[in-house]
Amino acid sequence: MAVIECIPNVSEGRRPEIVAAMADAIRAVPTVRLLDFSSDASHNRSVFTFAGDAPGVERAVLALFERAIADIDLRVHKGEHPRMGAVDVVPFVPIEGVTMVECVELAKKVGATIADRFGIPVFLYEEASTNPLRKNLEDIRRGEFEGLAAKMATEGWAPDFGPSKPHPSAGASVVGARMALIAYNINLATDRLDVAKKIAAGIRHSSGGFRFVKAAGFTLGDRKIVQVSMNLTNYEKTPIFRVFEVVKREAARYGVNVLESEIVGLVPSAALHAAAEFYLQLEGFKPEQVLENKLRTEN
Amino acid sequence: MAVIECIPNVSEGRRPEIVAAMADAIRAVPTVRLLDFSSDASHNRSVFTFAGDAPGVERAVLALFERAIADIDLRVHKGEHPRMGAVDVVPFVPIEGVTMVECVELAKKVGATIADRFGIPVFLYEEASTNPLRKNLEDIRRGEFEGLAAKMATEGWAPDFGPSKPHPSAGASVVGARMALIAYNINLATDRLDVAKKIAAGIRHSSGGFRFVKAAGFTLGDRKIVQVSMNLTNYEKTPIFRVFEVVKREAARYGVNVLESEIVGLVPSAALHAAAEFYLQLEGFKPEQVLENKLRTEN
Repeated sequence: MAVIECIPNVSEGRRPEIVAAMADAIRAVPTVRLLDFSSDASHNRSVFTFAGDAPGVERAVLALFERAIADIDLRVHKGEHPRMGAVDVVPFVPIEGVTMVECVELAKKVGATIADRFGIPVFLYEEASTNPLRKNLEDIRRGEFEGLAAKMATEGWAPDFGPSKPHPSAGASVVGARMALIAYNINLATDRLDVAKKIAAGIRHSSGGFRFVKAAGFTLGDRKIVQVSMNLTNYEKTPIFRVFEVVKREAARYGVNVLESEIVGLVPSAALHAAAEFYLQLEGFKPEQVLENKLRTEN
Repeated sequence: MAVIECIPNVSEGRRPEIVAAMADAIRAVPTVRLLDFSSDASHNRSVFTFAGDAPGVERAVLALFERAIADIDLRVHKGEHPRMGAVDVVPFVPIEGVTMVECVELAKKVGATIADRFGIPVFLYEEASTNPLRKNLEDIRRGEFEGLAAKMATEGWAPDFGPSKPHPSAGASVVGARMALIAYNINLATDRLDVAKKIAAGIRHSSGGFRFVKAAGFTLGDRKIVQVSMNLTNYEKTPIFRVFEVVKREAARYGVNVLESEIVGLVPSAALHAAAEFYLQLEGFKPEQVLENKLRTEN
């Protein structure tokens, strides 16, 4: 069976009963599993993680929109996190037995349905993007809800689906397909923030590092250590082990050791297998040799 | 759902039609998947690998015995591999959602049924063993089919289930539970067989090495390199990465590099995750963080 993950971000993180109602709407779809959801009050935003087959995931997204439109009004919404829609962003992620191309198709189908059914403009992003200037979420969202009507009136900002003006209370939504994202941190055995910041600058894409790494340096004040905090946005093309080895080497340049690393939240099994394959110098290894993969694909 | 793997070894490797009929008997059980089977003509032996829930695996084993008893006569069986039964050995291996204790219980239940239904003596081994002198397969099988009647007449060799004499044509069977076994080889960038042999001696249990490692040194003549060939019999207690690192270090002592390693056949996903966890220095990592595990256990 195909498994697609969907991680919608919704502009409500302060009213638990509203968030719970949205979670229930997702859970009500039989072929979908709600894996996680969490709210941030200062961001006034919630993130849901669920997975299922394509029809189930589509149904769950539409059910979520129905609730969000009824309960969220961006004209009165305040929060630290940038946003332009009640359901702000909806990524589809291929997990098992499904290709990126199929997730792109699903994003377009669901995007068109959202526009038709709810009168919400939809912008496609990442792998589903139809315009290189509208691939990054940050570029599409720049100006936020408050600047959206003006932005949509300028050339190049007609939505992919739906009306040419924002929905009065629900704004616009960004829908697309992307690889699974890994939140990965490396903690250094030092309190020198400059070291973490220099390493982060060296490995992140924006300043010349790996293409699929976003990184920043932080202090973990309570532990008196520093952290290189990362998002790995394509673990197949920029694998964990390569990032880890480069961070370790760059830290050594400052006489600093890696204390530990951590994965925050979920990680695809294949991302860990790739690390094992690298370090054990495994030759000719095939995914079918993983017992669990074999169990799920054979016969 | 619980997943138990079963890897019966059968004393027939020369008549493909007989082997195919046994494979079909396993495939006929709806809740079981036949993952692999292979025959060795010089050993005159076949190995089946299948997996399923406890009732399914039990049914498949009994169906296999029914065919094997009809088609195999050990009085006329010749082959290089030691054997004492038509179905020589039946291990149950816990894979997912099932404990070793449950696999031991299943081994005892299936063993008793084999004895009752087919009149075959059954010896329990490995984790299911009820006697420390009868834990290792090699100890139980010593003397083979030809010496079995005499052996069973001596003290301490009454079977765990069934008659006190061998079945005339099917001998006796060894049934038990064990951890998944990983066939793991490390190839060295040298043609010096003495180096592979010394390293194998250093890491294997029998000569003072790791408790759950069997190892030997070989020449891969066609490639002009040598190999440390291993069976890892408990990857939780003697993990792949520790064995790899020690082999690498011992090779360095002789000025030799590790060229590559290889996993032969199947490997449990968790064994690779443990390697990733070690090399990436992952702190606080939990199996539930693996997306595929989460998908299969939640809701």
